[in-house]
Amino acid sequence: MRTVLIETAYDGSGFHGWQIQPGVRTVQEELEQALSFICGEPIRVQGSSRTDAGVHAYGQAASFTGNFGIPAERIPVAVNRLLSDIRVGKAEEKPEGFHARYNAVGKTYLYRVSFTDIPDIFMRNYCYRLNKRLNTGNMEEAATYLIGTHDFNAFRSSGGQRLRTTVRTVCGLSVSETTGREGRAPIAAGGADPGRTEWTFRITGDGFLYNMVRIIVGVLVEVGLGRRKPEDMKDILDSGDRSRAGHTAPAGGLYLERVYFSEAEMDRSKGAPVGTRSDIGKTS
Amino acid sequence: MRTVLIETAYDGSGFHGWQIQPGVRTVQEELEQALSFICGEPIRVQGSSRTDAGVHAYGQAASFTGNFGIPAERIPVAVNRLLSDIRVGKAEEKPEGFHARYNAVGKTYLYRVSFTDIPDIFMRNYCYRLNKRLNTGNMEEAATYLIGTHDFNAFRSSGGQRLRTTVRTVCGLSVSETTGREGRAPIAAGGADPGRTEWTFRITGDGFLYNMVRIIVGVLVEVGLGRRKPEDMKDILDSGDRSRAGHTAPAGGLYLERVYFSEAEMDRSKGAPVGTRSDIGKTS
Repeated sequence: MRTVLIETAYDGSGFHGWQIQPGVRTVQEELEQALSFICGEPIRVQGSSRTDAGVHAYGQAASFTGNFGIPAERIPVAVNRLLSDIRVGKAEEKPEGFHARYNAVGKTYLYRVSFTDIPDIFMRNYCYRLNKRLNTGNMEEAATYLIGTHDFNAFRSSGGQRLRTTVRTVCGLSVSETTGREGRAPIAAGGADPGRTEWTFRITGDGFLYNMVRIIVGVLVEVGLGRRKPEDMKDILDSGDRSRAGHTAPAGGLYLERVYFSEAEMDRSKGAPVGTRSDIGKTS
Repeated sequence: MRTVLIETAYDGSGFHGWQIQPGVRTVQEELEQALSFICGEPIRVQGSSRTDAGVHAYGQAASFTGNFGIPAERIPVAVNRLLSDIRVGKAEEKPEGFHARYNAVGKTYLYRVSFTDIPDIFMRNYCYRLNKRLNTGNMEEAATYLIGTHDFNAFRSSGGQRLRTTVRTVCGLSVSETTGREGRAPIAAGGADPGRTEWTFRITGDGFLYNMVRIIVGVLVEVGLGRRKPEDMKDILDSGDRSRAGHTAPAGGLYLERVYFSEAEMDRSKGAPVGTRSDIGKTS
């Protein structure tokens, strides 16, 4: 019995999330169908994260087992021929018993927020658009309160799986601000849209509660808009009370960037600032 | 009887083109439904261009008539509430008899080509992705042969409407090359993808034959890849023979940027280099 780990990217806007559900298009089902076809046997994949409807991935991980003959390194090219809005980046053989969810030691998520004067229909499924600018310094300050090991109960939606604990470790949370050029709209203006500003939040941790990143971003945005003070983040965290945390940022701004299977890999990741508060905002 | 002109943008990836067809989703039908709702009477819109399935617009124009009461300036806000991947940017009253197609004196189209090492699934419907780099100087040289008034019969697909003439005037065709940052993929790499290069072709003319821009881009790309010489463009043009011109570039890379209703407007347009060969490649 072989075990293979794949890394996959997908545009979540065409899917009702990762997990198979009857009657709707899901990433898991499309991947399983394509992998079953190239492996010549029914394949069931286990994803590291069950991303919600509309959430994107640059680096979701998934594992599967079977007695198929195709060498791991040939899987991406073969399977990508059958896929359009999902792409398998790499595949590698793993020891028996390896599982993409249980062996994951951490993940990095990105969240994209944009300010534009005019809504950009081309970005409607890919970022959280605001019609006001955010104060980056205040958001960076608020973010520092989340770094470390805390009970994140205030930052989770009900409806997730049953949990033994709501304690998680956030080892990095950076905020980066960029202005100008962007993928779609600016082309209309000849390659640059000076009115556009984008904030990218990058958060790395050992695990995330249901909707945790989107609820954290919801608070950060409220801080950025001046509706809350940076210190409010600490009060919300300490309260353990979801109702204090405010709105859940929309799914389309969220991207699962990477899943880690060793601490060393997580530490090395350029995308993930690690540990100390002084790292905040220094990444990318 | 009032006549109103609207300017509209749409993400063509969810539509089977502009023109109403039974059983499929079209831009014209969605717009007509939304406008009929806010006007309180059945509205039929006339578009300046019948964009094909998958083709996008930043500035399609459309006109409609009726006895509705809503002031023109309130139409965008009202109608945009009913739309998702279409957006009405502005609306203005026009004299009776005005028609978005018959009164148009010119248009600007953009075409986006990208080189990336790895296909970017997030851009699959928005640019023509190549796995080789293009020679920009050679494409600029080839483009110069198209400027001016010519019989563009070699650059049209059959299947368009019946025509009195295939003579058209191209008053600007620029090629711009940009490297690096882009809308989607680069975020994964922390905001910059140094491996990415994009070429934007911007073409302005008094009118375009069916598939003319996409066939021109097909030849320009072949020149850029070194498969044809820049001078071949002239031979193809002179031949009037479609079979000499090669492939039609995919729909997803094409954007209707703007429609002009006066020569002055077309000349003023920053996006559209006008007239002389020396303008080529100098724009944006």
